[in-house]
Amino acid sequence: MAPDALHARPGLPALPALPALRVGMLGIGTVGSGTCRVLARNQALIRSRAGRPVELRMVAARNLVRAREITGPGIELMADPQRLVRHPQIDVVVEAIGGCTDARTLVLEAITQGKHVVTANKALLALHGDEIFAAAQAQRVMVAFEGAVAVSIPIVKALREGLAANRIEWLAGIVNGTSNHVLTEMRDKGVPFDGALREAQRLGYAEADPAFDVEGIDAAHKLALLAAMAFGTRLDFAAIDIEGISAVQPADHLWAQRLGHRLKLLAVARRCAQGLALRVRPTLVPERSMMAGVDGAMNAVMVQADAAGTTLYYGAGAGSEQTASAVIADLIDVARLERASLAQRVPPLGFHLGARDSALPVLAAGDVCSRHSLRVTLREGAGPRAVDGLLSTLADQGVQVEMQVSDACEHAFVTAELREAQMQQAVRTIEALPDVRGPVRRLVVEPLG
Amino acid sequence: MAPDALHARPGLPALPALPALRVGMLGIGTVGSGTCRVLARNQALIRSRAGRPVELRMVAARNLVRAREITGPGIELMADPQRLVRHPQIDVVVEAIGGCTDARTLVLEAITQGKHVVTANKALLALHGDEIFAAAQAQRVMVAFEGAVAVSIPIVKALREGLAANRIEWLAGIVNGTSNHVLTEMRDKGVPFDGALREAQRLGYAEADPAFDVEGIDAAHKLALLAAMAFGTRLDFAAIDIEGISAVQPADHLWAQRLGHRLKLLAVARRCAQGLALRVRPTLVPERSMMAGVDGAMNAVMVQADAAGTTLYYGAGAGSEQTASAVIADLIDVARLERASLAQRVPPLGFHLGARDSALPVLAAGDVCSRHSLRVTLREGAGPRAVDGLLSTLADQGVQVEMQVSDACEHAFVTAELREAQMQQAVRTIEALPDVRGPVRRLVVEPLG
Repeated sequence: MAPDALHARPGLPALPALPALRVGMLGIGTVGSGTCRVLARNQALIRSRAGRPVELRMVAARNLVRAREITGPGIELMADPQRLVRHPQIDVVVEAIGGCTDARTLVLEAITQGKHVVTANKALLALHGDEIFAAAQAQRVMVAFEGAVAVSIPIVKALREGLAANRIEWLAGIVNGTSNHVLTEMRDKGVPFDGALREAQRLGYAEADPAFDVEGIDAAHKLALLAAMAFGTRLDFAAIDIEGISAVQPADHLWAQRLGHRLKLLAVARRCAQGLALRVRPTLVPERSMMAGVDGAMNAVMVQADAAGTTLYYGAGAGSEQTASAVIADLIDVARLERASLAQRVPPLGFHLGARDSALPVLAAGDVCSRHSLRVTLREGAGPRAVDGLLSTLADQGVQVEMQVSDACEHAFVTAELREAQMQQAVRTIEALPDVRGPVRRLVVEPLG
Repeated sequence: MAPDALHARPGLPALPALPALRVGMLGIGTVGSGTCRVLARNQALIRSRAGRPVELRMVAARNLVRAREITGPGIELMADPQRLVRHPQIDVVVEAIGGCTDARTLVLEAITQGKHVVTANKALLALHGDEIFAAAQAQRVMVAFEGAVAVSIPIVKALREGLAANRIEWLAGIVNGTSNHVLTEMRDKGVPFDGALREAQRLGYAEADPAFDVEGIDAAHKLALLAAMAFGTRLDFAAIDIEGISAVQPADHLWAQRLGHRLKLLAVARRCAQGLALRVRPTLVPERSMMAGVDGAMNAVMVQADAAGTTLYYGAGAGSEQTASAVIADLIDVARLERASLAQRVPPLGFHLGARDSALPVLAAGDVCSRHSLRVTLREGAGPRAVDGLLSTLADQGVQVEMQVSDACEHAFVTAELREAQMQQAVRTIEALPDVRGPVRRLVVEPLG
């Protein structure tokens, strides 16, 4: 950033002279450095959209030498984040340190000090959102988090505002870029999970410790936020049924394709008769659905709403400037509404407190109804009577087969909707058949339409 | 609508008792009736999102008997729209009559009376937006128009707010559902344009007078709005280079497919070195692009931005409740920000007046650089030397061929970027070659990546 880069460019037509929004940033890693860079590069444009300058004034970071390399001169650096969140010349704190412990303490302290907060930290909000949003309401400050879900995609704004007239029926998201990248590589190159993951790590698409991503935790954090915004329910990360992709086999992709589907790690929140289904699982989606085309590190969220119908939002799910795009959009909202009343602002989760749809409990995993795909291997030499026996056993167990594809000893089915617990029982029963060899491979199927 | 449907349902948790936003509606056709229905059905939900009730109080319509059938009791009906826009008990006017003449007069009168305005009328805003937005700023009222572009998709909010940190490089939209439906039918069923259009009319996907849709005018209205919001330029409908789909042949789809593309009516706004390219044309898009999968009456807008990268927004492009979803989202914004200052609201086109990027002129059509597909028919019996002659003539004219597919006498090419005027000259030159039979079919190609 050039020395004068944060000052308005000459030639910018005069705006009413509103003072700058003074930003303090905690951390200058991937998110922080991207935000710093985009704020500097697009400062004139941001000012003309926000109606006032948005200026990074202070950064708290462990490594001040490295921080100075990133910020350039003119920005105050400090080692003590507590000093930043209490600083009287800061209007809004960008939390870009990640994790939950320090981030929670600092965000709560910033709120207590009357600062607005912008964060892209989904773990923090999924686990401590209720506490943080309540504190923010008491202090009448904003907590904005567009970057916390599918970073580059303004899905928070779409759900809280764009679709505000709608009763949401379901939403389904590919919201973890690492997992989607690994699944795409497995499918396109026919490589096993371990190899695809190692390659993703080598290319920087996966962390050294990839468990949060590939075990579905990160996607579940985002789903907790999406569901609360869509349905007005409480944040309930603990209630989400989670299965990651580490057990996915190349054959799963092959059979998905034969059944006219693609395999994705899908986060789903669905309004059912008895409650809300919340699930992150490797899932078959129809190959003609827009979701099937979401490949590599890209993210997408599809929403089914009573008035708008089906809408979909697609974009990069990670990246330094991609996250900065969301963080700065939030800063611009703060720049506009810093002194507005609570009623003039969009509530953090989209519903005014006290008006949430508490009548929608989260269903136990066993009570959720879905379609499934089953892949059954019959012992070699098993004849047509073995297949008949398999089909009649499925029918006895209440499993209705809607599509069937076979290849030598392997038989794959897509079933009609069935309760998870009943399907588990059916799978145990067919695994006990004498002609069935080894475990049955079962994956949920989402018709997305 | 049930008699009490507009009153809050019992059991809704108490909100701070803010008075209702009082809505008056001009017209009760497709958009108006959908808005009436969704406001009634989702009133409790809308209240808990908006923080106050949003109530339809009055409707002005020509046919009051029909209007009563739609609104049910409890809503004041009147024949005189002037009375509605001047009524002291109306806070916001929904313009749902369409057209430009009466709509312009009534919207300007509503603004003069200090009413906020919500409209989904793209023609009105593309042609008279400057006048209307200036009047609104002078009166400090809001003019909201989420429903004017790709109705169910909150693309206005995405461009004005979600991507506000970004310098937009280009956007490309499938923004006319009728045309996209006709093109999809032509491709899937191999039928000619006239037959596909008649079938679309029979099914209600196309108007009795389809010219606005199939000749690209409606898409261009939307493009004018999209471009102004993306680039901060003035609304400039007249500068858009427009070609509709009435000359599209089934063979165009076939050859597009052979070249690995799909044919779409694409509205494109692109920042080029010398200015802004604004164009609505039948366009080839790569079949692996998300845009290629947007079929039937669906709409999508893809945006390339410097920080966020590529994002895409997909949903229904028409429909009664789909439009209502956008109209009510706007009403909720008005409910929140009715008494806010101008600086607290998002400016209508996203940039504060006086801060627009007036340094970006719209390019003349002949100056726009693009890739093209060319389809050339050689006379029967023309040998390989005729093909060589064609290729060397193209090279002499500065046309660089990047892909080539042949079938008997027909040869199709995708070219590198070239100025439109230069490409026109090249086409004239090859049409004059003795071995070339009939006109060369030329379509622009957008790589979208």
